[in-house]
Amino acid sequence: MSDQKYFYTLLKQDRGGTARRGVVHTSHGDIQAPFFMPVGTKATVKTLSQEDLRAIGAEIELSNTYHLFLRPGCDIIQRAGGLHKFMGWDRPILTDSGGYQVFSLTDWRKLTDEGVEFQSHIDGLKHFLTPERVMDIQTVLGSDMVMPLDECSPYPCERAPAEEAVRRTALWAKRTKAHFEKTGMRERGQHLFSIVQGSVYQDLRERSARELIDLDTDGYAIGGVSVGETVEEMFKVLSWVIGMLPRDRPRYFMGIGMPDQIVKAVGMGIDMFDTVVPTRYGRYGTCFTDRGQIVIRNGQYKEDFSPLDSECDCPTCRNYSRAYIRHLFNAGEVLGLRLAAYHNVHYYVRLMARIRRAIEAGDYAAFEKDFLSRYGSPLAERV
Amino acid sequence: MSDQKYFYTLLKQDRGGTARRGVVHTSHGDIQAPFFMPVGTKATVKTLSQEDLRAIGAEIELSNTYHLFLRPGCDIIQRAGGLHKFMGWDRPILTDSGGYQVFSLTDWRKLTDEGVEFQSHIDGLKHFLTPERVMDIQTVLGSDMVMPLDECSPYPCERAPAEEAVRRTALWAKRTKAHFEKTGMRERGQHLFSIVQGSVYQDLRERSARELIDLDTDGYAIGGVSVGETVEEMFKVLSWVIGMLPRDRPRYFMGIGMPDQIVKAVGMGIDMFDTVVPTRYGRYGTCFTDRGQIVIRNGQYKEDFSPLDSECDCPTCRNYSRAYIRHLFNAGEVLGLRLAAYHNVHYYVRLMARIRRAIEAGDYAAFEKDFLSRYGSPLAERV
Repeated sequence: MSDQKYFYTLLKQDRGGTARRGVVHTSHGDIQAPFFMPVGTKATVKTLSQEDLRAIGAEIELSNTYHLFLRPGCDIIQRAGGLHKFMGWDRPILTDSGGYQVFSLTDWRKLTDEGVEFQSHIDGLKHFLTPERVMDIQTVLGSDMVMPLDECSPYPCERAPAEEAVRRTALWAKRTKAHFEKTGMRERGQHLFSIVQGSVYQDLRERSARELIDLDTDGYAIGGVSVGETVEEMFKVLSWVIGMLPRDRPRYFMGIGMPDQIVKAVGMGIDMFDTVVPTRYGRYGTCFTDRGQIVIRNGQYKEDFSPLDSECDCPTCRNYSRAYIRHLFNAGEVLGLRLAAYHNVHYYVRLMARIRRAIEAGDYAAFEKDFLSRYGSPLAERV
Repeated sequence: MSDQKYFYTLLKQDRGGTARRGVVHTSHGDIQAPFFMPVGTKATVKTLSQEDLRAIGAEIELSNTYHLFLRPGCDIIQRAGGLHKFMGWDRPILTDSGGYQVFSLTDWRKLTDEGVEFQSHIDGLKHFLTPERVMDIQTVLGSDMVMPLDECSPYPCERAPAEEAVRRTALWAKRTKAHFEKTGMRERGQHLFSIVQGSVYQDLRERSARELIDLDTDGYAIGGVSVGETVEEMFKVLSWVIGMLPRDRPRYFMGIGMPDQIVKAVGMGIDMFDTVVPTRYGRYGTCFTDRGQIVIRNGQYKEDFSPLDSECDCPTCRNYSRAYIRHLFNAGEVLGLRLAAYHNVHYYVRLMARIRRAIEAGDYAAFEKDFLSRYGSPLAERV
């Protein structure tokens, strides 16, 4: 049934490198890859409207099965006609499975091969999620790309539980795919990813990748990263796995990362990114530029009437000064968070467009080197 | 020096009524009257951007001398080149004097004929404001319309202190005007209002109006209303004063009000309104429609996928459902406040456009009657 050439098209591989320029095709439209997915955990990218995201040029939003399952609940989204209609977003949506949230947000959980029982972080009520149930929820959501329930190892993690997580993740991925096929999710235009686990153990990561590649899913994600390990370990994990992944499937580095990390990971062959960094940092007044971060509350911006980022053409940078945005933060005004988050998401989305142009131009290594050096990235030394 | 015909043009008086269709002219552009001024107390209309306000069609914003004086402070706004540049709004601005805030926000104040000493509600530091100082601050702000320092009587208020407030308000208005003229504020394109006080005492209100009319200011405001008195008393105050005010000056009913109150006050001859109601109510999830208020958190909207207001064409109503907005409020998401506030300010601004068309059509009484009845207004009975 699966016709991969209609899900991912590899347009160009960087000359002498591993960066890839491609397109992901969904029934809600194409997404030019590599791309960044703004995170709308609860069906909203914090402080931004869907109109903002369209204006920014975002081609996809990410949302979260765990959060939507708990609130507003599947019934309401089903009656709305799916998540796209519920949130007013007619472009592609990827939904995470909630595996990560069950492990990071809940106080109590009971894990068996059957699934995971947990207490809601909202009201303490108990719920039981299985790989099949997570697919059924994502059927209701109608997301274009769906993630399977996986066991995300914390950091640090002993070898034995990391191995157990790899085993269970593969077991669940198998059940997920069977359910995905059986219930007609593919026919309804959905695409299934699987998630490579294995903590920081090379053989476990390789085993996890092999097991999932054998399973043959539409896309591959590297999970269990950005959970507390060092940036060096994170890129080591990526380097072990990336070369194993099939060239004709999109590759997703989950929850990554800072701008310089994205630039680096694209250079290693990643196509898809998501992180709450641009909105979360924005809400605390930290803004991104090519020359690093600006902490807008700092006194040095008190009478700085220049834009947040003089190289940016977003409405925040066109219409407002650093001094004004600083005033908004000091006065506790919501517009401050919104202007900063808008700039940051715009910065990320435009960074991806620059990345794509650099790959098209055929010299990604030069772009990467130049970017990391201007950004003042510790990753620069390793290029 | 004053050339009134270049500040307010009366275009049309409603046939057989007192509603007025006019234009207020400022160096930052014309404002079609009657109009509503969205309130940006701290140089921002809560949750909305200046781009939002332009898209909504707001022709003017209101800000507040007291708040801006305390934060960010005059120095910063002066170095920004004035309030328009500081906040990124190139249309007209009216700034309130801060008289009301000194009386309502501060814990401690000392009032003499010279001025008012008070403790900042932010850091407790003592400040001294005089009628002259308030003008100097508004010179720095560069607002198109400036309000004088006045003594705003609380409610209820004994006759003696209300009379004292009328006396002091006139004394301060005189000093204000002298300073306004002497320091060249008029030449710099600013326009001075005066504020009628007198609490709920007819003779005091009339005396206050007479004293200020003798002083000859560019516009007239009715202050000390919406401070706790009944709606009936509020309109009584308006009825005493409105007929006395010169026809060739704009008339401003300060801090009013609910949509039905605005419709009613326009019928009595008011040109200008401001209130935090649309943004404040929006932030708590109460939204305005011609058929009254919607409290979006209510359970009845849980699966209501219709727009907030089916008669509205704002982005909130075009792109989002009641169920989605309710979800945003329940999940504590900022976008909820923003969508509700946007709709409410849009509702107010468009209500003023409908009001202007009704006056132009020459039958405001019919519009008023129809609106008040559909809105379910208690004012309907008195039309």
